[in-house]
Amino acid sequence: MKPVINVGIVGFGVVGCGAYRILQDNADLIERKVGSRIVVRQIADVDLERPRPVEFDRSIATRNPSELVNNPEIDIVVELMGGVQPAHHIVMTAIKNGKQIVTANKELIAKEGHSLLVEAGDRRQDFYFEASVGGGIPIIRPLKTCLSGDRIREIKGIVNGTTNYILSRMNQERKDFNEVLVDAQASGYAERDPTNDVDGHDAAYKIAILASIGFTSRVDVSQVYREGIRKVSQKDMAYASEFGYTIKLLAIAKEADGAMQIRVHPTMIPSSHPLASVMNVYNAVYVTGDPVGNVMFYGRGAGAEAAGSAVVSDIVDIARNINLGCTGRIPCTCFDEKPMQTMDDITCKHYIRMQTTDRPGVLATIANVFGENQVSLSIVTQKGVRSDGTAEVIWVTHEAPEPSVRKSLETIASLKVVNEVSNWIRVEE
Amino acid sequence: MKPVINVGIVGFGVVGCGAYRILQDNADLIERKVGSRIVVRQIADVDLERPRPVEFDRSIATRNPSELVNNPEIDIVVELMGGVQPAHHIVMTAIKNGKQIVTANKELIAKEGHSLLVEAGDRRQDFYFEASVGGGIPIIRPLKTCLSGDRIREIKGIVNGTTNYILSRMNQERKDFNEVLVDAQASGYAERDPTNDVDGHDAAYKIAILASIGFTSRVDVSQVYREGIRKVSQKDMAYASEFGYTIKLLAIAKEADGAMQIRVHPTMIPSSHPLASVMNVYNAVYVTGDPVGNVMFYGRGAGAEAAGSAVVSDIVDIARNINLGCTGRIPCTCFDEKPMQTMDDITCKHYIRMQTTDRPGVLATIANVFGENQVSLSIVTQKGVRSDGTAEVIWVTHEAPEPSVRKSLETIASLKVVNEVSNWIRVEE
Repeated sequence: MKPVINVGIVGFGVVGCGAYRILQDNADLIERKVGSRIVVRQIADVDLERPRPVEFDRSIATRNPSELVNNPEIDIVVELMGGVQPAHHIVMTAIKNGKQIVTANKELIAKEGHSLLVEAGDRRQDFYFEASVGGGIPIIRPLKTCLSGDRIREIKGIVNGTTNYILSRMNQERKDFNEVLVDAQASGYAERDPTNDVDGHDAAYKIAILASIGFTSRVDVSQVYREGIRKVSQKDMAYASEFGYTIKLLAIAKEADGAMQIRVHPTMIPSSHPLASVMNVYNAVYVTGDPVGNVMFYGRGAGAEAAGSAVVSDIVDIARNINLGCTGRIPCTCFDEKPMQTMDDITCKHYIRMQTTDRPGVLATIANVFGENQVSLSIVTQKGVRSDGTAEVIWVTHEAPEPSVRKSLETIASLKVVNEVSNWIRVEE
Repeated sequence: MKPVINVGIVGFGVVGCGAYRILQDNADLIERKVGSRIVVRQIADVDLERPRPVEFDRSIATRNPSELVNNPEIDIVVELMGGVQPAHHIVMTAIKNGKQIVTANKELIAKEGHSLLVEAGDRRQDFYFEASVGGGIPIIRPLKTCLSGDRIREIKGIVNGTTNYILSRMNQERKDFNEVLVDAQASGYAERDPTNDVDGHDAAYKIAILASIGFTSRVDVSQVYREGIRKVSQKDMAYASEFGYTIKLLAIAKEADGAMQIRVHPTMIPSSHPLASVMNVYNAVYVTGDPVGNVMFYGRGAGAEAAGSAVVSDIVDIARNINLGCTGRIPCTCFDEKPMQTMDDITCKHYIRMQTTDRPGVLATIANVFGENQVSLSIVTQKGVRSDGTAEVIWVTHEAPEPSVRKSLETIASLKVVNEVSNWIRVEE
């Protein structure tokens, strides 16, 4: 047992301060569990002057991360800078210097995780990243250890708090996307440049990470299909609700016949589905394994406390490994390079909303196009007719291949009686 | 790395066969993760002739569990007999023989877990029991490892599938307890003698286990307050729904000021609470930690597949430890002996249903009794008057100490104008 295990934190922002505070506040509890005192020995950040919510000893702070990763006293390097560079260089150097690694950096893991994990694994060092997905929700470690005997078939997640917050408020307050976004930005729930969240980049990183663990395969995150929530309208929400569905930004990963299907897009799910009631900034990951069946993990997806909790749990786990000489205990499990399906391989139900002219035979004309493409229909709804002679028509298909639906919509959009195909949202049961 | 790690299964029933099948079906996947082949080397059961859903080699079967626990080739003993004796003797012998242990036996862990864990820990051997709570839901290991930096404040669980199935069907089909119970027995969801489930024993074992981990303290399971679901009526369900609540059998553990409050009873929870939508045989555990906040774990609470998955995940974890020489990696964390509160220390909201005579002043008389006991009221409802001149009156209190409510009800029951206090259900927000 080492009496003290030293931690260095690179990137002392929201999550860094959160983890620091937990290590202070719960120091005795943690020491009893680990058998060693966990001490933050050094902190690196480009900006040391910025006011922070925690008190810390300035004498352990540096602007130079190399100083930290080369500090021989440090056992565990906690990388919380975000982004690929210079984080990748810093983490790789730390691994080569024999450090154990904790990171919350989803972009780094999604894009460069494999090389880092392999380097750490070859050296029998730990590389943990629980906080990279789902904030405080235990999900990485449960996938790796608790469902280790299962074949994971499917992972469906609400893994981005900002978009779930926006969609929840749109649903509750019957407001439009832009209105809620501005509010969310004002109250700190969305960034000034919201692209990373609302266009699904963040969710794509996270589902790529979960899929790589679940399916024991590397995932090329650039091949993950990605569609954000900007096009979701109040009307779509109302129709969804009428048909018994709720719209969520789902990150979906499925494996069938050795191929992986990974995508992020607005999705209608039955309102009775456990994911449908995950509201506001909460996240949840719904995993289907063989034989375990459906398992769901739910909690706060972001924030100093939640992500800090995950970072500290990684530190505790590594500290136990250090004391028992078993670091590198669970190495990378990406044994495979399973092929990725494209959206052309997807079959699901589809919701389509369009504006038509109100003339006899219009519905039949459109329905015919679906029929010619072998798309069979489950719901058709037309709500009255507007004074200008146009009507809004909603279609929900049975399970249909994506290319057939796309082809139908191309033809339908070119029909004279159709003014606009306003939205197209996939439906998962 | 050992090329082969040998497992012995004591008690080859539903869960045993489930685990056996997973070890066969997913053998290659597991071998890749562990680096060793996991082989079931011996099986012990009193009845070897009974038809089973899996094929197994009879030459490895024995009626004598001692033979198995004394077999020097066996690395991991998996105890799936249930009950305290002879399971305790067998497991203790196995530990003393140097075996690593996996068990799904909640009664054994709740009543005798501490001595077994300490014995295994002193010998640096593993003792895992993921399947003892929540079937396939990862909950024991996440509490021990993923929330290891958190102070756990509260655990609320739907941890008994039978009662949740009965309550769900009562709610959906507007049927009474006895009718659904008979149905559930016929279809195998309830035992012929349902006491262990419907009277809350099973849930008490499970919450005692979770509390002992969460609060790092031994729990005397005989001190866990326990009340089953037999008294829950269709009427209570309808009123609950009217007030925005759902009735669940909750297992609740709270820690405050160093004391533990652990109880199992029918509970009204807001219908918007994530636990309210956990239906049928699904289980869920809702954990509140500092700083992580609320985290929920959800999945199938029983059955060959779910519990088998948990048993296999324990085997995989232990196999990794064997290969790295770090068994006993996470020993017992019950450092404390925190005092238990009694129901006299509880404060919560209360729902009370009673039958009264319909006479002027009756409501005032009853409300006065509550007032005299400092119980303040939030909802009062009287639904018409019956032809015999009686009325049903429902009260929901604000937060009130249990003894004040009990005292009020004693007085109220003795009033001439009150025919019966029909039910009293605690309300948690």
